[in-house]
Amino acid sequence: MPSALILIADGTEEMEFTITYDTLVRGGIKVTSAYVPDVASPTLQRISPPTAKCSRGIHIMPDVYFDLSLCGPDIFDLVVIPGGAKGAETMSKHPSVQELVRRYIERNKLVGMICAGSLAAKTAKLPQQPLTSHPSVKAELEHGKYSNFEYLEDSVVISNNLVTSRGPGTAFPFALTLVELLCGSERREEIRGPMVFPPDTPF
Amino acid sequence: MPSALILIADGTEEMEFTITYDTLVRGGIKVTSAYVPDVASPTLQRISPPTAKCSRGIHIMPDVYFDLSLCGPDIFDLVVIPGGAKGAETMSKHPSVQELVRRYIERNKLVGMICAGSLAAKTAKLPQQPLTSHPSVKAELEHGKYSNFEYLEDSVVISNNLVTSRGPGTAFPFALTLVELLCGSERREEIRGPMVFPPDTPF
Repeated sequence: MPSALILIADGTEEMEFTITYDTLVRGGIKVTSAYVPDVASPTLQRISPPTAKCSRGIHIMPDVYFDLSLCGPDIFDLVVIPGGAKGAETMSKHPSVQELVRRYIERNKLVGMICAGSLAAKTAKLPQQPLTSHPSVKAELEHGKYSNFEYLEDSVVISNNLVTSRGPGTAFPFALTLVELLCGSERREEIRGPMVFPPDTPF
Repeated sequence: MPSALILIADGTEEMEFTITYDTLVRGGIKVTSAYVPDVASPTLQRISPPTAKCSRGIHIMPDVYFDLSLCGPDIFDLVVIPGGAKGAETMSKHPSVQELVRRYIERNKLVGMICAGSLAAKTAKLPQQPLTSHPSVKAELEHGKYSNFEYLEDSVVISNNLVTSRGPGTAFPFALTLVELLCGSERREEIRGPMVFPPDTPF
Protein backbone atom coordinates (compact mmCIF):
# COMPACT_ATOMS: atom_id res chain seq x y z
CA MET A 1 0.00 0.00 0.00
CA PRO A 2 1.59 3.30 -1.07
CA SER A 3 1.88 5.93 1.63
CA ALA A 4 1.84 9.71 1.65
CA LEU A 5 2.77 12.47 4.07
CA ILE A 6 0.88 15.77 3.83
CA LEU A 7 2.26 18.71 5.77
CA ILE A 8 -0.09 21.16 7.50
CA ALA A 9 0.55 24.38 9.41
CA ASP A 10 -1.39 27.35 10.70
CA GLY A 11 -2.55 29.16 7.58
CA THR A 12 -2.64 26.12 5.31
CA GLU A 13 -5.26 26.35 2.55
CA GLU A 14 -7.82 23.87 3.89
CA MET A 15 -9.33 22.97 0.51
CA GLU A 16 -5.94 22.05 -0.97
CA PHE A 17 -5.08 20.01 2.13
CA THR A 18 -8.44 18.26 2.36
CA ILE A 19 -8.94 17.53 -1.34
CA THR A 20 -5.47 16.01 -1.57
CA TYR A 21 -5.76 13.96 1.64
CA ASP A 22 -9.25 12.67 0.89
CA THR A 23 -8.56 11.85 -2.77
CA LEU A 24 -5.37 9.96 -1.91
CA VAL A 25 -7.28 7.94 0.72
CA ARG A 26 -9.94 7.16 -1.90
CA GLY A 27 -7.08 5.94 -4.11
CA GLY A 28 -6.07 3.40 -1.47
CA ILE A 29 -3.05 5.35 -0.22
CA LYS A 30 -2.22 5.46 3.49
CA VAL A 31 -2.11 9.17 4.33
CA THR A 32 -0.56 10.86 7.37
CA SER A 33 -0.77 14.59 8.05
CA ALA A 34 2.07 16.20 10.00
CA TYR A 35 1.91 19.55 11.79
CA VAL A 36 4.79 21.91 11.01
CA PRO A 37 5.39 24.60 13.64
CA ASP A 38 6.41 28.13 12.75
CA VAL A 39 10.17 28.32 13.36
CA ALA A 40 9.95 32.11 13.36
CA SER A 41 7.96 31.97 16.61
CA PRO A 42 9.10 28.75 18.32
CA THR A 43 7.11 27.42 21.23
CA LEU A 44 7.41 24.30 23.36
CA GLN A 45 5.46 21.42 21.87
CA ARG A 46 2.06 21.19 23.47
CA ILE A 47 1.08 17.87 25.07
CA SER A 48 -2.31 17.83 23.36
CA PRO A 49 -2.06 17.77 19.62
CA PRO A 50 -2.61 21.21 18.16
CA THR A 51 -5.23 22.00 15.61
CA ALA A 52 -3.95 23.82 12.57
CA LYS A 53 -5.97 26.99 12.13
CA CYS A 54 -6.30 27.00 8.37
CA SER A 55 -6.48 29.93 5.98
CA ARG A 56 -10.28 30.42 6.05
CA GLY A 57 -10.77 29.51 9.70
CA ILE A 58 -11.33 25.75 9.64
CA HIS A 59 -9.49 23.97 12.47
CA ILE A 60 -7.99 20.65 11.41
CA MET A 61 -6.37 18.18 13.79
CA PRO A 62 -3.17 16.81 12.22
CA ASP A 63 -2.32 13.13 12.66
CA VAL A 64 1.24 13.67 14.00
CA TYR A 65 3.86 16.29 14.73
CA PHE A 66 6.37 16.76 11.94
CA ASP A 67 9.70 15.10 12.74
CA LEU A 68 12.35 14.93 10.02
CA SER A 69 13.74 11.63 11.25
CA LEU A 70 10.31 9.95 11.12
CA CYS A 71 8.93 11.56 7.95
CA GLY A 72 11.59 10.60 5.42
CA PRO A 73 11.46 8.88 2.03
CA ASP A 74 12.28 5.57 3.72
CA ILE A 75 8.78 5.72 5.27
CA PHE A 76 6.56 7.52 2.75
CA ASP A 77 6.35 7.40 -1.05
CA LEU A 78 5.12 10.97 -1.43
CA VAL A 79 5.31 14.22 0.48
CA VAL A 80 2.81 17.02 -0.26
CA ILE A 81 3.20 20.71 0.55
CA PRO A 82 -0.12 22.54 0.30
CA GLY A 83 -0.56 26.26 -0.16
CA GLY A 84 -2.16 29.04 1.80
CA ALA A 85 0.21 32.01 2.05
CA LYS A 86 1.04 31.75 5.76
CA GLY A 87 1.16 27.96 5.90
CA ALA A 88 3.36 27.73 2.83
CA GLU A 89 5.70 30.34 4.28
CA THR A 90 6.01 28.38 7.53
CA MET A 91 6.80 25.19 5.63
CA SER A 92 9.08 26.58 2.98
CA LYS A 93 11.18 28.49 5.53
CA HIS A 94 11.53 25.51 7.87
CA PRO A 95 15.06 24.06 7.44
CA SER A 96 13.87 20.51 8.18
CA VAL A 97 11.15 20.77 5.53
CA GLN A 98 13.74 21.97 3.03
CA GLU A 99 15.93 19.00 3.94
CA LEU A 100 12.92 16.67 3.70
CA VAL A 101 12.13 17.84 0.17
CA ARG A 102 15.73 17.29 -0.94
CA ARG A 103 15.77 13.78 0.56
CA TYR A 104 12.59 12.76 -1.28
CA ILE A 105 13.94 14.01 -4.60
CA GLU A 106 17.33 12.34 -4.00
CA ARG A 107 15.66 9.04 -3.14
CA ASN A 108 13.45 9.20 -6.22
CA LYS A 109 10.25 9.55 -4.20
CA LEU A 110 7.44 11.90 -5.22
CA VAL A 111 7.14 15.51 -4.06
CA GLY A 112 3.87 17.39 -4.60
CA MET A 113 3.56 21.15 -4.17
CA ILE A 114 0.44 23.20 -4.82
CA CYS A 115 -0.32 26.93 -4.82
CA ALA A 116 2.17 28.87 -2.64
CA GLY A 117 3.54 25.48 -1.53
CA SER A 118 5.71 25.59 -4.66
CA LEU A 119 7.90 28.13 -2.86
CA ALA A 120 9.49 25.14 -1.14
CA ALA A 121 11.10 24.21 -4.48
CA LYS A 122 12.99 27.47 -4.22
CA THR A 123 13.86 27.36 -0.52
CA ALA A 124 14.97 23.70 -0.79
CA LYS A 125 17.20 24.83 -3.67
CA LEU A 126 15.93 22.18 -6.05
CA PRO A 127 17.53 22.15 -9.49
CA GLN A 128 15.98 24.57 -11.97
CA GLN A 129 13.14 22.81 -13.78
CA PRO A 130 9.58 23.32 -15.05
CA LEU A 131 6.99 24.07 -12.37
CA THR A 132 3.83 26.01 -11.62
CA SER A 133 2.28 27.66 -8.57
CA HIS A 134 -0.40 30.10 -7.54
CA PRO A 135 -0.06 33.18 -9.77
CA SER A 136 0.56 35.30 -6.64
CA VAL A 137 4.01 33.75 -6.10
CA LYS A 138 4.99 33.41 -9.77
CA ALA A 139 7.49 36.28 -9.60
CA GLU A 140 9.32 34.74 -6.64
CA LEU A 141 9.86 31.53 -8.59
CA GLU A 142 10.89 33.07 -11.89
CA HIS A 143 13.54 35.51 -10.75
CA GLY A 144 16.48 35.65 -8.38
CA LYS A 145 18.97 33.29 -6.83
CA TYR A 146 17.75 29.68 -6.78
CA SER A 147 14.58 30.72 -8.51
CA ASN A 148 14.99 30.74 -12.27
CA PHE A 149 12.50 27.96 -12.71
CA GLU A 150 10.83 27.37 -16.05
CA TYR A 151 7.44 28.73 -15.05
CA LEU A 152 4.42 27.09 -16.71
CA GLU A 153 0.71 27.84 -16.36
CA ASP A 154 -0.58 24.29 -16.76
CA SER A 155 -2.93 23.08 -14.01
CA VAL A 156 -0.51 20.30 -13.11
CA VAL A 157 3.18 20.17 -14.06
CA ILE A 158 5.15 16.93 -13.75
CA SER A 159 8.93 17.36 -13.78
CA ASN A 160 10.58 14.06 -12.98
CA ASN A 161 9.45 13.44 -9.40
CA LEU A 162 8.28 16.97 -8.69
CA VAL A 163 4.54 17.52 -9.25
CA THR A 164 3.29 21.10 -8.93
CA SER A 165 -0.11 22.73 -9.26
CA ARG A 166 -1.84 26.13 -9.02
CA GLY A 167 -4.55 26.56 -6.41
CA PRO A 168 -7.76 25.20 -4.85
CA GLY A 169 -9.32 25.05 -8.33
CA THR A 170 -6.62 22.64 -9.53
CA ALA A 171 -6.48 20.56 -6.34
CA PHE A 172 -8.64 17.78 -7.80
CA PRO A 173 -6.50 17.21 -10.94
CA PHE A 174 -3.38 17.55 -8.74
CA ALA A 175 -4.58 14.85 -6.32
CA LEU A 176 -5.86 12.59 -9.11
CA THR A 177 -2.46 12.88 -10.83
CA LEU A 178 -0.72 11.81 -7.62
CA VAL A 179 -3.07 8.82 -7.35
CA GLU A 180 -2.25 7.90 -10.95
CA LEU A 181 1.50 8.16 -10.36
CA LEU A 182 1.33 5.98 -7.24
CA CYS A 183 -1.44 3.55 -8.19
CA GLY A 184 -1.93 3.70 -11.96
CA SER A 185 -4.43 5.26 -14.34
CA GLU A 186 -7.06 2.58 -13.75
CA ARG A 187 -7.24 3.46 -10.07
CA ARG A 188 -7.57 7.12 -10.99
CA GLU A 189 -10.57 6.37 -13.20
CA GLU A 190 -12.08 4.06 -10.59
CA ILE A 191 -12.22 6.75 -7.91
CA ARG A 192 -13.12 9.58 -10.23
CA GLY A 193 -16.64 8.28 -11.01
CA PRO A 194 -18.10 8.35 -7.48
CA MET A 195 -16.79 11.91 -6.98
CA VAL A 196 -19.42 12.99 -9.57
CA PHE A 197 -17.64 15.78 -11.44
CA PRO A 198 -19.84 17.91 -13.71
CA PRO A 199 -20.01 16.75 -17.34
CA ASP A 200 -17.20 18.24 -19.45
CA THR A 201 -14.89 18.69 -16.46
CA PRO A 202 -11.44 18.85 -18.11
CA PHE A 203 -9.64 16.36 -15.82
CA MET B 1 -22.70 40.50 6.18
CA PRO B 2 -24.61 37.34 5.23
CA SER B 3 -24.12 34.38 7.53
CA ALA B 4 -24.16 30.62 7.06
CA LEU B 5 -24.35 27.58 9.29
CA ILE B 6 -22.71 24.37 8.09
CA LEU B 7 -23.47 21.18 9.95
CA ILE B 8 -20.77 18.58 10.56
CA ALA B 9 -20.86 15.13 12.16
CA ASP B 10 -18.68 12.06 12.42
CA GLY B 11 -18.54 10.66 8.89
CA THR B 12 -19.10 13.98 7.10
CA GLU B 13 -17.44 14.15 3.67
CA GLU B 14 -14.55 16.49 4.47
CA MET B 15 -14.12 17.84 0.93
CA GLU B 16 -17.77 18.86 0.69
CA PHE B 17 -17.63 20.48 4.12
CA THR B 18 -14.31 22.26 3.54
CA ILE B 19 -14.94 23.45 -0.02
CA THR B 20 -18.28 24.93 1.01
CA TYR B 21 -17.00 26.56 4.20
CA ASP B 22 -13.86 28.01 2.60
CA THR B 23 -15.62 29.26 -0.54
CA LEU B 24 -18.36 30.97 1.48
CA VAL B 25 -15.71 32.69 3.63
CA ARG B 26 -13.96 33.83 0.45
CA GLY B 27 -17.32 35.25 -0.61
CA GLY B 28 -17.44 37.43 2.51
CA ILE B 29 -19.98 35.29 4.35
CA LYS B 30 -19.63 34.69 8.09
CA VAL B 31 -19.56 30.90 8.47
CA THR B 32 -20.14 28.82 11.59
CA SER B 33 -19.81 25.04 11.69
CA ALA B 34 -21.95 23.13 14.19
CA TYR B 35 -21.33 19.59 15.42
CA VAL B 36 -24.35 17.29 15.26
CA PRO B 37 -24.19 14.27 17.60
CA ASP B 38 -25.49 10.87 16.62
CA VAL B 39 -28.89 10.53 18.33
CA ALA B 40 -28.76 6.77 17.80
CA SER B 41 -25.88 6.56 20.29
CA PRO B 42 -26.36 9.51 22.64
CA THR B 43 -23.55 10.52 24.95
CA LEU B 44 -23.16 13.36 27.44
CA GLN B 45 -21.72 16.44 25.81
CA ARG B 46 -17.99 16.57 26.31
CA ILE B 47 -16.50 19.69 27.93
CA SER B 48 -13.82 19.98 25.29
CA PRO B 49 -15.16 20.48 21.82
CA PRO B 50 -15.13 17.26 19.85
CA THR B 51 -13.42 16.83 16.55
CA ALA B 52 -15.60 15.38 13.85
CA LYS B 53 -13.88 12.32 12.41
CA CYS B 54 -14.70 12.79 8.77
CA SER B 55 -15.31 10.17 6.08
CA ARG B 56 -11.69 9.78 4.94
CA GLY B 57 -10.09 10.23 8.35
CA ILE B 58 -9.50 13.97 8.60
CA HIS B 59 -10.36 15.34 12.05
CA ILE B 60 -12.05 18.74 11.93
CA MET B 61 -12.82 20.86 14.98
CA PRO B 62 -16.31 22.35 14.64
CA ASP B 63 -16.92 25.93 15.76
CA VAL B 64 -19.90 25.17 18.05
CA TYR B 65 -22.24 22.43 19.21
CA PHE B 66 -25.47 22.26 17.27
CA ASP B 67 -28.38 23.74 19.25
CA LEU B 68 -31.72 24.18 17.50
CA SER B 69 -32.60 27.28 19.51
CA LEU B 70 -29.34 29.04 18.54
CA CYS B 71 -29.02 27.87 14.93
CA GLY B 72 -32.30 29.09 13.48
CA PRO B 73 -33.17 31.20 10.45
CA ASP B 74 -33.36 34.28 12.72
CA ILE B 75 -29.57 34.01 13.10
CA PHE B 76 -28.26 32.58 9.81
CA ASP B 77 -29.21 33.17 6.17
CA LEU B 78 -28.24 29.71 5.00
CA VAL B 79 -27.90 26.23 6.45
CA VAL B 80 -25.80 23.60 4.63
CA ILE B 81 -26.00 19.83 5.06
CA PRO B 82 -22.96 18.11 3.57
CA GLY B 83 -22.74 14.48 2.54
CA GLY B 84 -20.66 11.52 3.57
CA ALA B 85 -22.90 8.50 4.15
CA LYS B 86 -22.56 8.27 7.93
CA GLY B 87 -22.58 12.01 8.59
CA ALA B 88 -25.60 12.58 6.38
CA GLU B 89 -27.44 9.75 8.14
CA THR B 90 -26.71 11.29 11.54
CA MET B 91 -27.96 14.68 10.40
CA SER B 92 -30.99 13.58 8.41
CA LYS B 93 -32.25 11.33 11.21
CA HIS B 94 -31.80 13.99 13.90
CA PRO B 95 -35.27 15.40 14.75
CA SER B 96 -33.84 18.86 15.53
CA VAL B 97 -32.05 18.98 12.16
CA GLN B 98 -35.32 18.05 10.43
CA GLU B 99 -37.07 20.84 12.35
CA LEU B 100 -34.22 23.24 11.49
CA VAL B 101 -34.56 22.54 7.76
CA ARG B 102 -38.31 23.16 7.88
CA ARG B 103 -37.83 26.44 9.74
CA TYR B 104 -35.34 27.76 7.17
CA ILE B 105 -37.66 26.89 4.30
CA GLU B 106 -40.67 28.40 6.09
CA ARG B 107 -38.76 31.61 6.82
CA ASN B 108 -37.58 31.88 3.21
CA LYS B 109 -33.95 31.36 4.12
CA LEU B 110 -31.62 29.20 1.99
CA VAL B 111 -31.04 25.48 2.56
CA GLY B 112 -28.13 23.75 0.82
CA MET B 113 -27.78 19.96 0.66
CA ILE B 114 -25.05 18.08 -1.17
CA CYS B 115 -24.40 14.39 -1.86
CA ALA B 116 -26.13 12.15 0.71
CA GLY B 117 -27.04 15.35 2.59
CA SER B 118 -30.07 15.58 0.29
CA LEU B 119 -31.65 12.79 2.33
CA ALA B 120 -32.59 15.51 4.81
CA ALA B 121 -35.11 16.83 2.26
CA LYS B 122 -36.91 13.52 2.67
CA THR B 123 -36.61 13.14 6.45
CA ALA B 124 -37.66 16.80 6.98
CA LYS B 125 -40.69 16.01 4.82
CA LEU B 126 -40.15 18.94 2.50
CA PRO B 127 -42.72 19.37 -0.25
CA GLN B 128 -42.04 17.30 -3.36
CA GLN B 129 -39.86 19.34 -5.72
CA PRO B 130 -36.87 19.05 -8.05
CA LEU B 131 -33.60 18.04 -6.42
CA THR B 132 -30.40 16.07 -6.93
CA SER B 133 -28.03 14.09 -4.71
CA HIS B 134 -25.20 11.60 -4.84
CA PRO B 135 -26.25 8.81 -7.23
CA SER B 136 -25.95 6.30 -4.35
CA VAL B 137 -29.04 7.72 -2.62
CA LYS B 138 -31.09 8.49 -5.73
CA ALA B 139 -33.46 5.55 -5.18
CA GLU B 140 -34.27 6.69 -1.64
CA LEU B 141 -35.32 10.10 -2.91
CA GLU B 142 -37.32 8.95 -5.91
CA HIS B 143 -39.54 6.35 -4.31
CA GLY B 144 -41.61 5.86 -1.19
CA LYS B 145 -43.48 7.97 1.34
CA TYR B 146 -42.25 11.57 1.45
CA SER B 147 -39.78 10.81 -1.31
CA ASN B 148 -41.31 11.23 -4.71
CA PHE B 149 -39.01 14.11 -5.55
CA GLU B 150 -38.43 15.14 -9.14
CA TYR B 151 -34.92 13.74 -9.39
CA LEU B 152 -32.51 15.63 -11.67
CA GLU B 153 -28.89 14.92 -12.58
CA ASP B 154 -27.71 18.52 -12.89
CA SER B 155 -24.62 19.42 -10.85
CA VAL B 156 -26.61 22.02 -8.91
CA VAL B 157 -30.40 22.19 -8.67
CA ILE B 158 -32.13 25.32 -7.38
CA SER B 159 -35.76 24.83 -6.33
CA ASN B 160 -37.02 27.99 -4.64
CA ASN B 161 -34.82 28.16 -1.52
CA LEU B 162 -33.57 24.58 -1.66
CA VAL B 163 -30.19 24.18 -3.39
CA THR B 164 -28.98 20.62 -3.92
CA SER B 165 -25.86 19.10 -5.47
CA ARG B 166 -24.21 15.75 -6.20
CA GLY B 167 -20.84 15.05 -4.61
CA PRO B 168 -17.29 16.26 -3.94
CA GLY B 169 -16.84 16.87 -7.66
CA THR B 170 -19.72 19.36 -7.68
CA ALA B 171 -18.86 21.03 -4.37
CA PHE B 172 -17.20 24.02 -6.06
CA PRO B 173 -20.18 24.92 -8.29
CA PHE B 174 -22.49 24.25 -5.31
CA ALA B 175 -20.55 26.64 -3.07
CA LEU B 176 -20.14 29.27 -5.79
CA THR B 177 -23.90 29.13 -6.43
CA LEU B 178 -24.57 29.75 -2.73
CA VAL B 179 -22.18 32.73 -2.81
CA GLU B 180 -24.04 34.07 -5.84
CA LEU B 181 -27.44 33.66 -4.18
CA LEU B 182 -26.30 35.44 -1.01
CA CYS B 183 -23.90 38.04 -2.45
CA GLY B 184 -24.58 38.36 -6.18
CA SER B 185 -22.96 37.18 -9.38
CA GLU B 186 -20.20 39.80 -9.29
CA ARG B 187 -18.94 38.46 -5.97
CA ARG B 188 -18.98 34.96 -7.41
CA GLU B 189 -16.78 36.02 -10.32
CA GLU B 190 -14.51 38.02 -8.02
CA ILE B 191 -13.60 35.04 -5.85
CA ARG B 192 -13.51 32.53 -8.69
CA GLY B 193 -10.38 33.98 -10.33
CA PRO B 194 -7.90 33.52 -7.46
CA MET B 195 -9.06 29.91 -7.03
CA VAL B 196 -7.37 29.19 -10.40
CA PHE B 197 -9.69 26.64 -11.97
CA PRO B 198 -8.32 24.85 -15.05
CA PRO B 199 -9.24 26.47 -18.37
CA ASP B 200 -12.59 25.19 -19.71
CA THR B 201 -13.91 24.33 -16.26
CA PRO B 202 -17.69 24.29 -16.79
CA PHE B 203 -18.67 26.44 -13.78
